[in-house]
Amino acid sequence: MAGNSFGNLFRITTFGESHGPAIGVIVDGSPAGLPVDVAFIQAELDKRKPGQSKITTQRKESDKVQILSGMFENKTTGTPIAMLIPNEDQRSKDYSHNQDIFRPSHADYTYQTKYGVRDHRGGGRSSARETAARVAAGAIAKLLLKQTGIEVLAHVSSVGRIDAPNVDYHDAEAFTALREANIIRCADPATAEEMIACIDGIRKQGDTIGGKVSCYITGCPVGLGEPVFDKLHAELGKAMLSINAVHGFEYGSGFSGSRMRGSEHNDIFVRGADGAIQTRTNYSGGIQGGISNGMPIEFTVAFKPVATIMANQQTIDAEGEAAEIQGKGRHDPCVVPRAVPIVEAMAALVIADYWLLNKTVKL
Amino acid sequence: MAGNSFGNLFRITTFGESHGPAIGVIVDGSPAGLPVDVAFIQAELDKRKPGQSKITTQRKESDKVQILSGMFENKTTGTPIAMLIPNEDQRSKDYSHNQDIFRPSHADYTYQTKYGVRDHRGGGRSSARETAARVAAGAIAKLLLKQTGIEVLAHVSSVGRIDAPNVDYHDAEAFTALREANIIRCADPATAEEMIACIDGIRKQGDTIGGKVSCYITGCPVGLGEPVFDKLHAELGKAMLSINAVHGFEYGSGFSGSRMRGSEHNDIFVRGADGAIQTRTNYSGGIQGGISNGMPIEFTVAFKPVATIMANQQTIDAEGEAAEIQGKGRHDPCVVPRAVPIVEAMAALVIADYWLLNKTVKL
Amino acid sequence: MAGNSFGNLFRITTFGESHGPAIGVIVDGSPAGLPVDVAFIQAELDKRKPGQSKITTQRKESDKVQILSGMFENKTTGTPIAMLIPNEDQRSKDYSHNQDIFRPSHADYTYQTKYGVRDHRGGGRSSARETAARVAAGAIAKLLLKQTGIEVLAHVSSVGRIDAPNVDYHDAEAFTALREANIIRCADPATAEEMIACIDGIRKQGDTIGGKVSCYITGCPVGLGEPVFDKLHAELGKAMLSINAVHGFEYGSGFSGSRMRGSEHNDIFVRGADGAIQTRTNYSGGIQGGISNGMPIEFTVAFKPVATIMANQQTIDAEGEAAEIQGKGRHDPCVVPRAVPIVEAMAALVIADYWLLNKTVKL
Amino acid sequence: MAGNSFGNLFRITTFGESHGPAIGVIVDGSPAGLPVDVAFIQAELDKRKPGQSKITTQRKESDKVQILSGMFENKTTGTPIAMLIPNEDQRSKDYSHNQDIFRPSHADYTYQTKYGVRDHRGGGRSSARETAARVAAGAIAKLLLKQTGIEVLAHVSSVGRIDAPNVDYHDAEAFTALREANIIRCADPATAEEMIACIDGIRKQGDTIGGKVSCYITGCPVGLGEPVFDKLHAELGKAMLSINAVHGFEYGSGFSGSRMRGSEHNDIFVRGADGAIQTRTNYSGGIQGGISNGMPIEFTVAFKPVATIMANQQTIDAEGEAAEIQGKGRHDPCVVPRAVPIVEAMAALVIADYWLLNKTVKL
Repeated sequence: MAGNSFGNLFRITTFGESHGPAIGVIVDGSPAGLPVDVAFIQAELDKRKPGQSKITTQRKESDKVQILSGMFENKTTGTPIAMLIPNEDQRSKDYSHNQDIFRPSHADYTYQTKYGVRDHRGGGRSSARETAARVAAGAIAKLLLKQTGIEVLAHVSSVGRIDAPNVDYHDAEAFTALREANIIRCADPATAEEMIACIDGIRKQGDTIGGKVSCYITGCPVGLGEPVFDKLHAELGKAMLSINAVHGFEYGSGFSGSRMRGSEHNDIFVRGADGAIQTRTNYSGGIQGGISNGMPIEFTVAFKPVATIMANQQTIDAEGEAAEIQGKGRHDPCVVPRAVPIVEAMAALVIADYWLLNKTVKL
Repeated sequence: MAGNSFGNLFRITTFGESHGPAIGVIVDGSPAGLPVDVAFIQAELDKRKPGQSKITTQRKESDKVQILSGMFENKTTGTPIAMLIPNEDQRSKDYSHNQDIFRPSHADYTYQTKYGVRDHRGGGRSSARETAARVAAGAIAKLLLKQTGIEVLAHVSSVGRIDAPNVDYHDAEAFTALREANIIRCADPATAEEMIACIDGIRKQGDTIGGKVSCYITGCPVGLGEPVFDKLHAELGKAMLSINAVHGFEYGSGFSGSRMRGSEHNDIFVRGADGAIQTRTNYSGGIQGGISNGMPIEFTVAFKPVATIMANQQTIDAEGEAAEIQGKGRHDPCVVPRAVPIVEAMAALVIADYWLLNKTVKL
Repeated sequence: MAGNSFGNLFRITTFGESHGPAIGVIVDGSPAGLPVDVAFIQAELDKRKPGQSKITTQRKESDKVQILSGMFENKTTGTPIAMLIPNEDQRSKDYSHNQDIFRPSHADYTYQTKYGVRDHRGGGRSSARETAARVAAGAIAKLLLKQTGIEVLAHVSSVGRIDAPNVDYHDAEAFTALREANIIRCADPATAEEMIACIDGIRKQGDTIGGKVSCYITGCPVGLGEPVFDKLHAELGKAMLSINAVHGFEYGSGFSGSRMRGSEHNDIFVRGADGAIQTRTNYSGGIQGGISNGMPIEFTVAFKPVATIMANQQTIDAEGEAAEIQGKGRHDPCVVPRAVPIVEAMAALVIADYWLLNKTVKL
Repeated sequence: MAGNSFGNLFRITTFGESHGPAIGVIVDGSPAGLPVDVAFIQAELDKRKPGQSKITTQRKESDKVQILSGMFENKTTGTPIAMLIPNEDQRSKDYSHNQDIFRPSHADYTYQTKYGVRDHRGGGRSSARETAARVAAGAIAKLLLKQTGIEVLAHVSSVGRIDAPNVDYHDAEAFTALREANIIRCADPATAEEMIACIDGIRKQGDTIGGKVSCYITGCPVGLGEPVFDKLHAELGKAMLSINAVHGFEYGSGFSGSRMRGSEHNDIFVRGADGAIQTRTNYSGGIQGGISNGMPIEFTVAFKPVATIMANQQTIDAEGEAAEIQGKGRHDPCVVPRAVPIVEAMAALVIADYWLLNKTVKL
């Protein structure tokens, strides 16, 4: 099935395997007349690229983006924007040992069974490398949203059992500065130190650890989201769950909301200082009935630990015989620092799409 | 936007407000030749209908389904199946007091702002009544899945802080019998008693409480799910998050997986007694790389407490002036017992759709 | 496949067989706040309904439309509008002789082979009765377009070898009055007489005849149509070709344009009396590069002769044995008078959809 | 709007302007395991490329295709296939004179008005160069169809007023050999000579001429096509009408069918020599009720004359002032010889898509 597209009016289609010549994306439906700063797209990609720090994979990819279409004199023309990111450090031989064996908790077995064939070099299409294309596309969406005053901000809110306290995200620049000041991308400096130490220890043991990314969207007008199946949080949830290694999504009060009473959980409407309608609490996470209510949108995404570890593991081979596998590739001990720009990109794509959709709902 | 449809090849479109003449659904794309037992569809609807027990709303609706098309001699013909459910107990006057006021944590304010108009009688399109149409459509999907040996089973796994222990769902009939033996729809009888007592107490206080529904899909072949954006769990997540009052979705290890190490979390492949490939643990929740791996699919859905309570609440009116609102309608103290068939229906719709999609992926 | 929907943002889904209890349609994506006059919808349906005159089928259907949702105080609310048209004069026994035999140039054989089953009563889903649902939906689209000054006007331009001269369509009311003054729905009275006499003669012979409908869309702004695959005329063409019995579509110069030279065919841009940019000729049919250019949109649709005739015909039966079939149902000698409102409806649906799409193409 | 995609399960998305660095396409949804011969794709592109003969534009483009993804060991893997075709002979300066002027019967004016901006170098996205991407994608579709015995064959059936007689297309190789033996791509050698002389004369006058391409699809199984809106001929019609310069589409009896009687037009079912059900005549063009009936599919596409001519023409400029324009680019005197592979490609894409869709319609 043609499943490599996402979005309705602002729609992306990605392609490319981790060990082919390139990956890329077509952004279709971006409005014409949007100024695009290629340096901004590149900066977003740089936040996702491998080899950034001691707590990310040492695979080297410069992830330099090329724009092939859809732009004229640095503005979008309304035609599809194609972006290409060549693969550089492929080292396919690193993966030859994976040809006939299924790595535990990877997509090897399911791809092989589904398609009857698989590009066994580094995960092929199931590689997290695919997400670079999403980040490039998400950068265009972010530029569109900035024009309307919407900011999409994420940071690492948990690593293993280490949880960050609530952080203030209302000043986008300050939030981003705090977050980018450390290699884990947590906007709380003290927790960041703790998280980094944790990951570094786990890395030295050849193991991996899960974590969470929290995302905040400010400046969102009332009215985004389509009722019933295309509720705003349903589309955000799908967007997040489509990111590699994500096992959970919650917004507003989330799972803890299921333990609360209605009398505690209801968000009371009040007039703000500026006269705007707002709610006293935000258990609704900025969304009521699937539609944004003008409060900040808040959600959290749970990532499982990376499946590639350095220890020997039991498994089976392509013939179904018992086998043993050793981790050899260059992988991340924890996915969350590099996941931050991916979460932001996917969120920006959803909001841009629904912002466009919302232009057509009333006379 | 045309947002009232769900699915790709097996696709539903719903319509209807809670206080209009009827709600309904068109199921388009069901394969021809499927025997359809209307009594089965009705039985599914009966599990969702109001007025079932002391812990559900006392609104009375018989929810009798009429099939208008797509069937010939009790089999599907491949043409769209339209189903109609007339509304009976509308009592619109109960809602006249809501015309000019926004109920806290309801969709009144967001609908009014988005569309500039709203059918204020009982929530209009945002009413949970809309989910009856999903249950009717999901029943067709279930009948299709049964033909292939797939079972979709859900039960209430939490009410407030009361969590059910893990239950055995491998025998679908036994599981269902246990679950249907109590009014809360929890397959663990002892926990069920505790949950019912909890809800009944909260009901008497005029308050409401959240909860969780867990769902298990057995007999699912390897290969369902489209990589990248349309991962099986991403579509399941969207389906669940589109249900009224849902605030969270997790599959497999879910949020607790974010606290684990890779060495613990990896699901080791082994040969089962029958020679089939399976995994020792199922932290992957039956899905790897977005594709089903043949193990049971497991996920959990978190529901917030119902927003309508009996206490007086502060709010604002349509002019933005401070106002007070009293709960007067007939509502559920806890949504989860009636949510069980809705979760099953949405899951069945996703699996039926992806089962069809999977017929076209290889030569 | 879920193939019973049409449109992107303004999207319809139809259901129903000719001999079931009802047919109907869901209109999803109509903007909120549109005043809807049910009498107008009914008047459109009345132009399509059977039994209007001596040159249409004598099947009796009052085609009374019921609106089930999506409306509040006579305005659209932005939620799906469901409309139901009960079937009345079904006389299924008339068709029992068709159960095991394939009628020439009907869809019996292809449906039976594709689906393995078919509702043999009167064509089931392939019956032209399905188009009543389109006309009801198209009426909503027309009401939307009228708000923006767009008129969609069609008439019968040929019956067999009788061609109408060019007619003036700039005054919508005058055009419609002329057209509705005769039972063939041709806006040229003299030709109309000739056409009626022709059809009446053919009817008496138990035969049928083909014809053409031409359509004109005035008041369309510059900019409707999406380049490349979703060109405005490509979508109009699909819409028309999806109508029963249509065998051809041309716009602007159409097939005769293929015989012309560029120096003749180019439409020279000039300033009109009111200063607006227009073209001296309109070989482009109001569309350049797939996008409306502000000139009237002009296209013509060719209908084959109705396949049901009164003469005996050779055919084969369900076992593939030679058989003979006699026409017995009540059918039209020529489809075009009743096709006029269908062509208009489908055109209005396309224009309404593309008018909404065009709201999102530039900043 | 995201309008640069075509197809449902077998879906393409194209990008690129005529004067940017490259054009290209992503083919998503091709089944895994399909052997792909890159030389075949290139050969298809060579039939479309400019500079082939004296009767095509002298613009030089080698149109060398690069495959970036979706292939492993020369077979498709089920993941998206990205193909890139670099632009070479761009000569943008040739077009600088077009910046502030609207060429008659081009898309300059409509693009400028729709988007507020346009890449004025050679038509940007509205250039026929975009069709190279379609031909590359169509080649993959053709390879898929060949596996199932389906052949898609087109040739030039008219140039101006010169019409080819009916040709025999049942032997695909013989048909193709005859067609490729002349530069106009007409499978009737005598008519080909006449057509070439006609075009050459018109070219010397600096003028252009329209023409028609007819297409035949053999080996198509019964059952392709979705009833109602997605009839097989409706989708073929949209596909053809989306090709630059197309003004008309007809299938089977087409426009001439509108002049016939039912008693002449009905296709009588008979048993063929091999026992298969066929029809004596094929006025239905291989499609009944929107579904293929096993007979050859036959349709014809009308192309207007190319708008770029060598004579001076009146027009207006971007300020709406009267202006004069001279044709200076390198363009085709008649589009049909290069349109043949484009028509075949679009037809193959439709048939491949509907062949996949048809796998899911019955149990």
